Amino acid sequence: MKLICSKSNLLRGVNIVSKAVPTRTTMAILECILIDASTNEIKLMANDMELGIETRVEGEIAERGVIALDAKIFSEIVRKLPDSDVMIETDASFKTVISCEKAKFNIVGKSGDDFSYLPYIEKNDAIVISQFTLKEVIRQTIFSIADNDNNKLMTGELFEIIENELKVVSLDGHRISIRNIELKNNYENKKVVVPGKTLQEISKIVPGGVDDDVLIYLTDNHIVFEFDTTTVVSRLIEGEYFRIDQMLSSAYETKVIVNKKELLDCIDRATLLVKEGDKKPIIMNITDGSMELKINSFIGSMNEDIDIEKEGKDILIGFNPKFFIDALRVIDEENVSLYMVNPKAPCFIKDDEGKFIYLILPVNFNNAAN
Amino acid sequence: MKLICSKSNLLRGVNIVSKAVPTRTTMAILECILIDASTNEIKLMANDMELGIETRVEGEIAERGVIALDAKIFSEIVRKLPDSDVMIETDASFKTVISCEKAKFNIVGKSGDDFSYLPYIEKNDAIVISQFTLKEVIRQTIFSIADNDNNKLMTGELFEIIENELKVVSLDGHRISIRNIELKNNYENKKVVVPGKTLQEISKIVPGGVDDDVLIYLTDNHIVFEFDTTTVVSRLIEGEYFRIDQMLSSAYETKVIVNKKELLDCIDRATLLVKEGDKKPIIMNITDGSMELKINSFIGSMNEDIDIEKEGKDILIGFNPKFFIDALRVIDEENVSLYMVNPKAPCFIKDDEGKFIYLILPVNFNNAAN
Repeated sequence: MKLICSKSNLLRGVNIVSKAVPTRTTMAILECILIDASTNEIKLMANDMELGIETRVEGEIAERGVIALDAKIFSEIVRKLPDSDVMIETDASFKTVISCEKAKFNIVGKSGDDFSYLPYIEKNDAIVISQFTLKEVIRQTIFSIADNDNNKLMTGELFEIIENELKVVSLDGHRISIRNIELKNNYENKKVVVPGKTLQEISKIVPGGVDDDVLIYLTDNHIVFEFDTTTVVSRLIEGEYFRIDQMLSSAYETKVIVNKKELLDCIDRATLLVKEGDKKPIIMNITDGSMELKINSFIGSMNEDIDIEKEGKDILIGFNPKFFIDALRVIDEENVSLYMVNPKAPCFIKDDEGKFIYLILPVNFNNAAN
Repeated sequence: MKLICSKSNLLRGVNIVSKAVPTRTTMAILECILIDASTNEIKLMANDMELGIETRVEGEIAERGVIALDAKIFSEIVRKLPDSDVMIETDASFKTVISCEKAKFNIVGKSGDDFSYLPYIEKNDAIVISQFTLKEVIRQTIFSIADNDNNKLMTGELFEIIENELKVVSLDGHRISIRNIELKNNYENKKVVVPGKTLQEISKIVPGGVDDDVLIYLTDNHIVFEFDTTTVVSRLIEGEYFRIDQMLSSAYETKVIVNKKELLDCIDRATLLVKEGDKKPIIMNITDGSMELKINSFIGSMNEDIDIEKEGKDILIGFNPKFFIDALRVIDEENVSLYMVNPKAPCFIKDDEGKFIYLILPVNFNNAAN
């Protein structure tokens, strides 16, 4: 194999496919990036068997061939080359010479024969969504997936297509995040659970242009994302996702409208009194026109009043402050509405248009101590 | 005690004195920042018994007093307060209320009685140096102090005053870094060894203006730095520093002039083939008009040619690449001159004006294998 491409193109490609290189594996071939120049295109590929990424790199093929190179070494070499044309040459024993200007690296690659190519996916109707929207919807929901494997379904996100709507849901047993996106077209109804890791990596490699699209294909076992010259294929998580509709009641006893930044800053300040693992709730004492926030810990106490608009009953309710912070951080609105029923029922943060719902369970607290 | 000052002033002061708070200590009082408003000034102080920092903060004292507050908690509270006036109030049982706008923190402080105030230093003739120059000279030498305590003197830097010159030296047994600074005035000759940690912290808190000065006072046991409203007092390292003059010969057999950036980039590229702890040298093969750099490791090999100007003999010599990278990074000149005698004698990187000398010992290498 012998090929020439610019350092910048090569680096862009390497950075993209590296996201599918596993950090730990017993199979050395999975630690490699495959350079496939066996046809008239240069393709880079990596695959950890759950997530596979393939991207096309502009360049010139002087001699066709395939080589697998250790991802870490190869990407470090590419990163440190001068900003010029790079030549990659291999021989029959997989010796590889990477040269750029006067610099010349010799490393030994592996045969591409053992490499697991991306699975072939029968492509049906493509769901079209802007790169910007996809990145946003991931950012706005990914924080509430479960951080352990106890329940596999909780480590993923529900992607549900209902006609011209995409509903994305994540939950971890203490909270639920829901975002609804309007699509340009109508599609067949479909529900899949996408691994959280796939979504995290996708949101790192999608450039995120408002006018650039991502095509999404769904099958029973896989989800495929196509954008620019890149294809990402991921396995889905098997199983029936949680039924959340029954948890979403619209009845409430107290409605609060509050400035988002003020509430976020205040809770953020309060949490500095809470050490990791020390589950101290933030207490909200909601009365007409005012919300008093209080926190009490071994370190000290903090309280602050915030101006609010209130409808309905007064309420005294406690929350894990982190859950509130996570949700408020991804809401772009200046003011948010909180809906509560009683100190043991979930609080909803939602907008009037139904674009988002964040459900947070309250925590018990010893009222006397606060 | 009761005082009021702006959040920004308070934060600036807290950030400065925090540098003298030890990360680990068995004495709880050392983990505190002392707020001393016992006179008509607000002073913040921290002291780890080696390094002590005191800074004055603008503000209003409504009631005089002193309090010691846990540095970590106090600085986090200050950092997260709204950008407004902060009031700090304490009572006789050291209960402390920190309030700002509607936010109110309650924490418990400690009596200032147990706090170790900065030692009183008899101030003699002040050595005047610009903040910029002090920061630069630290950056240009600090990398070659020893990173372990085997020889205490190697963990510090020599500050030597010779009439109107400040010579700063650091060495770790494999290399020596020397910077000579011209001072505006003449001073009495004096040699002290300043702990590396003190210099690292100083360079973080000195703003670094070209037109702003630092006053340095030297005694037998202490060095004092005064700038803006801050005073830093540090113990010195005891003992006679190494005699380096006998190592600095000006005879050479080979002189090389090379573009600094080209050489640095090339060595930097080569090091990616060297894993931590794997002591592979970079080999320089210096001939007329050209320097070939080669490195060979378990991962692979790399070679690159660089154009040079050469005087004297050809030479084949090997170095620890990190030592070359460290020195080249802090040299601002476009071209550097290397002086060598033979493959077992130190290489000098120095300028014609005697502003800097970097001495690097070569390493043995198996020529046949390279």
